[in-house]
Amino acid sequence: MQAQELPIDPQAIRELIRLGKYDGVTGGLAPGYVQANLVILPKYLAFDFLLFCQRNPRPCPVLEVLEAGNPNPILTTPGADIRTDIPKYRIFRKGTLDEEVGDLNSFWRDDLVSFLLGCSFTFESALVESGIHLDHWDNNKNVAMWKTNIDCVPSGMFRGPMVVSMRPIHHSNVTKAVQVTSRFPGAHGAPVHIGDPKLLGISDINFPDYGEPANFQDGQVPMFWACGVTPQAVALESKPDFMITHAPGHMFITNKRDYELASL
Amino acid sequence: MQAQELPIDPQAIRELIRLGKYDGVTGGLAPGYVQANLVILPKYLAFDFLLFCQRNPRPCPVLEVLEAGNPNPILTTPGADIRTDIPKYRIFRKGTLDEEVGDLNSFWRDDLVSFLLGCSFTFESALVESGIHLDHWDNNKNVAMWKTNIDCVPSGMFRGPMVVSMRPIHHSNVTKAVQVTSRFPGAHGAPVHIGDPKLLGISDINFPDYGEPANFQDGQVPMFWACGVTPQAVALESKPDFMITHAPGHMFITNKRDYELASL
Repeated sequence: MQAQELPIDPQAIRELIRLGKYDGVTGGLAPGYVQANLVILPKYLAFDFLLFCQRNPRPCPVLEVLEAGNPNPILTTPGADIRTDIPKYRIFRKGTLDEEVGDLNSFWRDDLVSFLLGCSFTFESALVESGIHLDHWDNNKNVAMWKTNIDCVPSGMFRGPMVVSMRPIHHSNVTKAVQVTSRFPGAHGAPVHIGDPKLLGISDINFPDYGEPANFQDGQVPMFWACGVTPQAVALESKPDFMITHAPGHMFITNKRDYELASL
Repeated sequence: MQAQELPIDPQAIRELIRLGKYDGVTGGLAPGYVQANLVILPKYLAFDFLLFCQRNPRPCPVLEVLEAGNPNPILTTPGADIRTDIPKYRIFRKGTLDEEVGDLNSFWRDDLVSFLLGCSFTFESALVESGIHLDHWDNNKNVAMWKTNIDCVPSGMFRGPMVVSMRPIHHSNVTKAVQVTSRFPGAHGAPVHIGDPKLLGISDINFPDYGEPANFQDGQVPMFWACGVTPQAVALESKPDFMITHAPGHMFITNKRDYELASL
């Protein structure tokens, strides 16, 4: 199935994904609903990873944690199954990508703890709805991302640099962009930096570490937000024996509406 | 030493507490600095308790977690020692209060994880600074608290009702009180209820479960905030083999200023 043939209801989309009828990216699907990053780790690492998220809430906003062996995200998405309802997964062993699979049925274990983490789609929708144009939305590109010189606060084996995404925003909208995204701490929240990329250790704004470079218009300022690539990158760098994530762009679609995450 | 003889600097106060020269309550000490509730549990319960806090951020705002065996809160209060810098502690075994002690030197173990949780002093200061009178401040009383019919979201062995504190606020200040306290999610944040106490299962506003009843003035409305008694009460009800808390009113004084907790 193609993305444009899909229904707009999150439950109906997840059912088609579960049946193997859709395995594409989820950007733009179920508009208005929160999408989530997935990290699955064995229980013996779960406290350290949860504490890492608590210490680094901007890059690692926790939406829900599924206790060991539970595949059902009953708090955000009753009826869903984390093992089958994402279009594509990645299996990592000792920090190395071993395979990409369509479901987790043959990989599931009773000691696996699943973390659903907030995603920038939520705050980007809020920016666009507030009248702020986003270059990568208008031009159907991936956002530009960099590793920075900001170290995350470590926890146990988990440590590493914060990854940020950058959006060019017209200087007259900078304050509004801070206000709008501040309302969504569950989706990375307020920016971590506005202005000079060199202060983050970024040497060339035209060469991102991940994603695609952005086009700047006259009067636009670079604004940097903590990025959901951080927890996966950090978890991977620590080379856990076993770890599962969603494949990039293939997110978990929750039943929560974006504005249910709003803090004010 | 009496409270009024103490210095106003948090580090100087902690040193006097550490030397055994002050063992009283901490309300009003080191004005402008964040005070914290303390819960210490063995490591095997730490993931479930941290997840309980993540699931119930209003009653259980996590300021810092000290990993197993670490007595030094290096993120909020470098140089402090959680074992000696609180005026009075309570030792619980299987959910029963066994003893009250002045330091933890003979109780410390390498498997103990310490949780520092936000305290209402922070948002009360913000309310008072914004021009809102608080009955229990003006009349030197304890705030009124109740168990409610709101169940916390459980995690592992930890479950129980949310405890709330109530403050009478003039109806013309209700919106301002929501706005001011919303800025402090690390100190219980926005109110959980405004108005009719019966909707929380509270049958008589004049008979609190804990603390002292408040005097209502003409035009005042009861506003209810999640209360730091919740995590201790819930942790206790689950009857862990071993648990340490601060003694009521004898809080940990951090080096963080109240306004460093402000989210916006």
